[in-house]
Amino acid sequence: MMEENVLTPKIKINKKELILSEAAMLFKEKGFGGTSMRDLAEKVGMEAASMYNHIKSKDEILELICFKIANQYISQLQEIENTNQTFQEKLNAIIGLHVHLIIEDAASVSVANNDWKYLSNDKKEQYKETRKSYEKSFANIIEQGMQNGEFKKMNVSVALFTMLSSLRWIELWYKPSREISPRELEDDLKTLLMTGLNK
Amino acid sequence: MMEENVLTPKIKINKKELILSEAAMLFKEKGFGGTSMRDLAEKVGMEAASMYNHIKSKDEILELICFKIANQYISQLQEIENTNQTFQEKLNAIIGLHVHLIIEDAASVSVANNDWKYLSNDKKEQYKETRKSYEKSFANIIEQGMQNGEFKKMNVSVALFTMLSSLRWIELWYKPSREISPRELEDDLKTLLMTGLNK
Repeated sequence: MMEENVLTPKIKINKKELILSEAAMLFKEKGFGGTSMRDLAEKVGMEAASMYNHIKSKDEILELICFKIANQYISQLQEIENTNQTFQEKLNAIIGLHVHLIIEDAASVSVANNDWKYLSNDKKEQYKETRKSYEKSFANIIEQGMQNGEFKKMNVSVALFTMLSSLRWIELWYKPSREISPRELEDDLKTLLMTGLNK
Repeated sequence: MMEENVLTPKIKINKKELILSEAAMLFKEKGFGGTSMRDLAEKVGMEAASMYNHIKSKDEILELICFKIANQYISQLQEIENTNQTFQEKLNAIIGLHVHLIIEDAASVSVANNDWKYLSNDKKEQYKETRKSYEKSFANIIEQGMQNGEFKKMNVSVALFTMLSSLRWIELWYKPSREISPRELEDDLKTLLMTGLNK
């Protein structure tokens, strides 16, 4: 314990990130319920007691992973919203955002997509609200593009969920060993998802 | 029991169908694990003892529902494959097939999509094989359409799973109270999913 206490805050943050990243991989592989703190400590190469200097519980880890990912999606979507791009360019950028986040941190995205239902009740509500607000901003871009004539008029929810479900699926399928580069994946998705919507 | 035994086979089949259809709605609403045979008997309006003249167990019901839906998808896909339509027309017909099966029997499709994992091990393997064979036939149509120049060349799996995930999502979203007709839903999906693929 003494050893841990003399660590500088900087190193503590890195250890915490390491714990989160190893936890995400374990949750993806063995499920949230199937992963114990003992498994995690072993994977990280720390004593369980030392690990508790960085994180309080498995629940806290899940919470940190889910909201880290949710906040990345939300903040990057806001950046895209605030540019002067056309709505077509904005949707293309959102497709890119989904592909990039999955390529960069597939395990954490997988945990956020699949294990959020194990969050405590109040955190789960908060998470669902965050997701709803993301969907709303996404739908707004589609709707505005329809209104200004960039996109064909059609049911906004059908367009939104067609895109979201296709982007959601990447995480379940993509792995570096697939015979496709991230660039090709992104290009194919843009062709498939944007051509039908564009006027 | 006597009363049940004098039923004609025809009526027995209808009762069995009624049981399956009510079971699908209960599984969708309360989950497979959360539904008891007692709940089901009450919903169907039969004594539990009489119900066992028609079906053996909750596991058998799940099996019947999952394979009924899987067989509908498979047989209708085979019909589409055996026509002389273009590959574009075939894919359009597959989109229609997914929309129709969901509109006709949303609860059973939901059970087949979500609760197949509770099948017994051998049935689960068989179910997964059936699904794999469906995906393979679907992918073949996409691939042939690329080879004969109807579709743009791109990664076949990306095209396949973009379509499948979008079609999968309908079941989670669609209900008759949505402000969209089945016809509009089908048309929007065809526009969204086919335009990008077509050359």
